[in-house]
Order: sequence, then C-alpha cells, then structure tokens
Amino acid sequence: MRDFNETNITQAVIERFANTPDPRLKQLVTRLVAHLHDYLREVEPSFPEWLAAIQFLTRAGQISNETRQEFILLSDTLGVSMLVDAINHRMPAGATETTVLGPFHVAGAPLVESGADISFGAVGEPLYIEGRVTSNTGAPLPGAMIDIWHSDQDGFYDVQRPELDHPAARARILAGADGRFEVRTIMPAAYPIPHDGPVGEMLQATKRHPWRPAHVHFMIAQPGYETLVTHLFASDSDYLDSDAVFGVKNTLIRDFIRRDAGPLPDGTMVPGPWRHLQFEFGLKPGS
Amino acid sequence: MRDFNETNITQAVIERFANTPDPRLKQLVTRLVAHLHDYLREVEPSFPEWLAAIQFLTRAGQISNETRQEFILLSDTLGVSMLVDAINHRMPAGATETTVLGPFHVAGAPLVESGADISFGAVGEPLYIEGRVTSNTGAPLPGAMIDIWHSDQDGFYDVQRPELDHPAARARILAGADGRFEVRTIMPAAYPIPHDGPVGEMLQATKRHPWRPAHVHFMIAQPGYETLVTHLFASDSDYLDSDAVFGVKNTLIRDFIRRDAGPLPDGTMVPGPWRHLQFEFGLKPGS
Repeated sequence: MRDFNETNITQAVIERFANTPDPRLKQLVTRLVAHLHDYLREVEPSFPEWLAAIQFLTRAGQISNETRQEFILLSDTLGVSMLVDAINHRMPAGATETTVLGPFHVAGAPLVESGADISFGAVGEPLYIEGRVTSNTGAPLPGAMIDIWHSDQDGFYDVQRPELDHPAARARILAGADGRFEVRTIMPAAYPIPHDGPVGEMLQATKRHPWRPAHVHFMIAQPGYETLVTHLFASDSDYLDSDAVFGVKNTLIRDFIRRDAGPLPDGTMVPGPWRHLQFEFGLKPGS
Repeated sequence: MRDFNETNITQAVIERFANTPDPRLKQLVTRLVAHLHDYLREVEPSFPEWLAAIQFLTRAGQISNETRQEFILLSDTLGVSMLVDAINHRMPAGATETTVLGPFHVAGAPLVESGADISFGAVGEPLYIEGRVTSNTGAPLPGAMIDIWHSDQDGFYDVQRPELDHPAARARILAGADGRFEVRTIMPAAYPIPHDGPVGEMLQATKRHPWRPAHVHFMIAQPGYETLVTHLFASDSDYLDSDAVFGVKNTLIRDFIRRDAGPLPDGTMVPGPWRHLQFEFGLKPGS
C-alpha cells in the first residue's frame, strides 16, 4: 500500500504488524499505534513540537545510568506507574495496598538479624519499626523476606551520596516465627525527585513541584504470595496531597509516633526523642 | 487528593497540570496523559511488560548520537513521522507532496553551481537530475535553495561511512532564473534503516523488514513558500509497497529512465548506461 493520508495511515501501520508471532506483543504494539495516532490527530503537533518530543525522549535515555532512571521518573510523574500498579494489584480485603517501586531500590541489600540498626551511619532522628507479616486472612508468615529502604534526614538515599562506599538506610530481614520483625533506623525526610533532567524541565514548565512526602519503602516476599511493594508515609509530612508521583494511599499513611527520650522497645537508651512505627502487612495469595 | 485507583488517577494527573502557563503545552501534556492512560487501561500491561518498555526507551536514547537518531527511527517505523507530516502539509493542487525528512539530512552541505557533479566520489551508475522549482500555480522560483542527498550504490549515506572525511552524494544548489537546476550524481540503492538497535529488535520481533525503496531526498526553500521536504522514488525499486517508514506516495514515484552510453545532457561522455530523472517541484505559498 502507498499514498497514506491522515486517516488511512493508522490501519496501514497496524496491518504491517500482521505477522507478529507473539499475539500479546502484537496486541501491545498495534493498540499503541492506534492510541498514539489518535492522540496526534487530536493535538496536531507542529514539526518543531514533534522534534522537541524526540529530543526530550533522547535526553531522558542519555541521562539514565546505573543509579538514575529518567524514564521511570517520567512514568511516575505522569501517573503511569501507579496506574500499572493498580491494574496489577486488585487487592482482596486484608491485603496491604501497593504503591510504586521507585527508582532507589537496590537488589541484594545487607541481610541483617531482626532488631539490627539498619541506618549504617545515616543521620537523623531515631526511628524504631515494629512490623508483622501475615496473609490477608491474618495467618502469620514466618520466614517472609522484608526489604526496607528509605532516605536520610536530608532526603537522600545512599545511592545518591557518591562519597558513601557502603549501603545505608537499607537492609533485608527475615520475619520470625510469628511473622514479626523489628529494626532500628532513622526518620526519612520529604525529598524532591531528581529534577535536573528532562523530567525536571517538564515539571518546571508546567509549574509542578518535584516533592514526595516522607516515607519508608517495603518489599515483602513469601512463596505462595504476591510480592508486596509498598511505602508507609509519615502522617505529619508535607506533600501528602501532592506527591509528585501520585503514590499516596490513605491506608499507607501512618503516625510515626513521637516518643520522649528513654529506652527504645529493644532497651537501647537514646538521649533525645524518637519515633515509633508499627504496622501489620497483609499479603495476597498468588505468586 | 489521595487514594488513586484505575479510574480516577487520570483526572488527578490532568488536574496536577492545571497551572501550566502555556496553554498549548497544557493541551499537549494533558491529552497525552488521557490517551496514554486509556491505552494502558485497555492492554493492562504486566510489571515485566512495563519494565521492558522503560528499558526499550532507555536503550533508544543511549544508542542515539550525532549521526544516529533512534527515536526518529521509532517515529518513522510506527508511522508517526508520516502522520505528523500529513497533518502539517495539507497541500493545494499543483504542490508537490511531502514525505519524511529521515535521519540522514546534514545542514550546511556543499553549495555548488548548477550542473556540478555532487557524487564527490560516491560510486554507482551515473544519474543526471534535471529539476525545475515553481509555485503551485506554475510560476518559476529563481533563487530557490535546493538541498539534495541520497545513498550510494551500496545503500549507505556518507555519514554512515566513517572512513570518509568529506560529504558525498549531497549538496545545495540555487535554482536559476527560470527555476531550473541540474546535477550529475549516481543512482541511490534500496537500503535497510539502521536495525542493530532497539528499533531493529522491534522490527525483528514483529517480522517486519527494515528496507526502504531507492530514493533521492530534496529539501527546497524559498522565501514566501513552505519549505518542501520530499523524496523521489525510483519506479523500478523493490519495497515501494512496504517501505519500512511508510514514506511512499504515488506522485513521488518516478521513472529514473535508463539511457544508453553516450553524452549526458551537459555533454559529458559516459562509457556505459546512465539514468535520467526529470521533475517539476511545486511549492505551497506560506512560510
């Protein structure tokens, strides 16, 4: 076929994918073409606008590296990550709600004993976390693997501090016989997502701020259950109503309770006030 | 707002762009969010599929450089470039149809006299091009700037041959008093678009070939007229019905006429057969 015009080119492109062996790939690519062409017919981009989009995408790829993923930031800031999350996690009663993984998870964090100090030198107000992992019907899940990571008091993750030569404020813990685990760490802070690249330009041009409310990330895996990826947000943080990545859910907002100076639950004496976070995580059966 | 679900997140993201100062940018980004979310709700990507898309886009940015633009290739192979071209070039009668710029145009090609040999050493069957530039109503446009570029007989552009230290098979010519110009060069060949990157993986996974039919590119500029970006395709080339970038239009397919050995129109003697291409380019008033 030749002589494509504004109307018939879409079907012509879709037909060009007719021999795609994998039916799922065929669906993903042909429906992408249909929706993308509909968008372009609606907004009628000029050639300079098309070129600006090409250059934006190119710069997003080129600024990405081992510790920075600009396309995940773009997905996050356009609500795509949370939409994909919602589609893939239609949760039964009793199961903890999910949210975005974010760009700062690192595989293979230090494996520590329950009760350990996982700040590894990161500075901030002491935070004591007591958790319990159960099925969505309340049965404890001993041996569940809990991956925890969060920012320091300045809002930075260890991977954003080039001077650090070891992990900090991140660890893995195995749940005990009753599904319980506890760790000592420090309070995370609200922080801006990296905004010195193309996504930052987009936020600035549209008068959006790059901030996320203070939170702790959890990823919890147990055979026979869907791996849970979620955050807990501090109820006294700013930006709960305008998270740059749309990740906040009401059930994930928790009081990180202020406690006066005194012993932590494990008996450690701390000289000033500290925070206390308790939560029960419910996992959805599946794999 | 918090507690986004599969349905309400789209409006929430759109509202986040409410303060965008530039109304056109606001339209482009909010309608992109609406169409992109509709696509995702329809195909329901899994997390691995989402990640594969992130990685595809990242690799496309990272393989791009001064002489290779993978996102333009992606736009071309999904019919996006031709759709944007059609939207921006609704042509009156008498105006030459347009097609994609492609990734091989280089600004500032050598400026030569009409009649010059613009192969600059590129090897192939001789080709003599005689053209005339007019308005869409037939008035000659003296002084129009004609930019010409094409592949060599192996299907490569000069910028794809790292051993070359000078432009070849590309030049700029000014139309004479009657709008006419002529150049000596060589026959281009059908060629595959670069397919050793992410776009090539997409074509392979969907059983699409990467070939374009043999063609010569023209970009013609004259004050008071829309700059014309087009190709002329050789009527005896393969792939006229399956151009990988959907660029073929019937009015742009021309006989590159086979002539026996003898003098070229400018009197040059050539020892073997040669090709003869004649075309009248009609420019649309505008700017």
